[in-house]
Amino acid sequence: MNRPFHYETVDLSPEELRTEHEVFGGLAQEVRELAEACIRTTVPTEVATEVRDEVARLTARLRESMIPGSFGVNLTSDGAVRGHGNAVVGLRNPLAVPLQIQRSDEGRAWADFELNALYEGPPTMVHGGVVALILDQVFGEAAAAGGTPGMTGTLTLRYRKNTPLGRCSAEAWIDRHEGVKTYVHGVLRDAEGTETVEGEGIFILPRWAREASEGKPVRFE
Amino acid sequence: MNRPFHYETVDLSPEELRTEHEVFGGLAQEVRELAEACIRTTVPTEVATEVRDEVARLTARLRESMIPGSFGVNLTSDGAVRGHGNAVVGLRNPLAVPLQIQRSDEGRAWADFELNALYEGPPTMVHGGVVALILDQVFGEAAAAGGTPGMTGTLTLRYRKNTPLGRCSAEAWIDRHEGVKTYVHGVLRDAEGTETVEGEGIFILPRWAREASEGKPVRFE
Repeated sequence: MNRPFHYETVDLSPEELRTEHEVFGGLAQEVRELAEACIRTTVPTEVATEVRDEVARLTARLRESMIPGSFGVNLTSDGAVRGHGNAVVGLRNPLAVPLQIQRSDEGRAWADFELNALYEGPPTMVHGGVVALILDQVFGEAAAAGGTPGMTGTLTLRYRKNTPLGRCSAEAWIDRHEGVKTYVHGVLRDAEGTETVEGEGIFILPRWAREASEGKPVRFE
Repeated sequence: MNRPFHYETVDLSPEELRTEHEVFGGLAQEVRELAEACIRTTVPTEVATEVRDEVARLTARLRESMIPGSFGVNLTSDGAVRGHGNAVVGLRNPLAVPLQIQRSDEGRAWADFELNALYEGPPTMVHGGVVALILDQVFGEAAAAGGTPGMTGTLTLRYRKNTPLGRCSAEAWIDRHEGVKTYVHGVLRDAEGTETVEGEGIFILPRWAREASEGKPVRFE
């Protein structure tokens, strides 16, 4: 089996998994809050300069020991997937909201989440590209939930209305399969439940991954 | 003129603009580096816990004085646009790469940039949604550069190959206009210059903004 990139098998004890969530997940959450404060702060220059220099010192401490490159995806020996570096759902990734996506076996995925100043495009509105970032992940997880995970082949989104920053939700479902292609539809809704963006994605599973997954639903740890 | 959301006019002296870049832009850059280290660090739990608590203290300092809500878009009294909170190009936004987009008057926009572990989807690869996030902004700036800025109406992307993390570039250009719609095409390229994703966007200018901009190219500060 020719895997084009690296999936590492890493088993964590329940205690280690709890630490990963509380300490490293907690660290990422604090950095998300720091990041949002960077946009909105109006503290005096001297304070911002001190904070800037303190942040650099903290980064140096974390860099004392690091994996090379990027997080990748960890697999557990019983076949679960741990994507803690992922840009949308990653527990350890301060850019990630992170979305906590729910899934059902028939190929449906959904999430409720809050988008703050970090995700702004037009004033007070969610950036159109952030909508695409989130829907790509939710569409892909619907495909995976139905036992046909894949890489994004095509993504088409229609923006019907602006989406105000604040509470939002996303939902996606498998529409049909054609050979190796899984067609997914989905929507973004604002805090009122109004559909603001809708569209579809085509997800295609590489041959090596088809052979490895044997059509089993993907389990996330 | 009925503006659906807030654009504030804020004039900064050259000295204040320099401070904004060095101090607040510098702070955002340090937080980007801290965020990337969060994903890759393997320091002991005790160190990560200390860093987590230090980050919370720094956030509290920045929060001593903040604007409410989100950054929005500042306009200068001579008509330039300052989008320092923007999720893709914002100087103050640690989620933003930030892209430094170049533009030409005939409606072309392009940028070279580096994507690290923060932007990962499949192991070692750029997240498909991150590609969409970036292209939405570059497509929109091509429309704006040609004097027809707009909100994203439709975004369609075709993913031809995986895009490895590392150096990338994006380019977009106005294909045509149809009434209030501007059709933009564009591509993402990997470090080798290979096109990995291509697609198009339709950008539509709200009436109030058409009246305000009078077809002038948008200048960014």
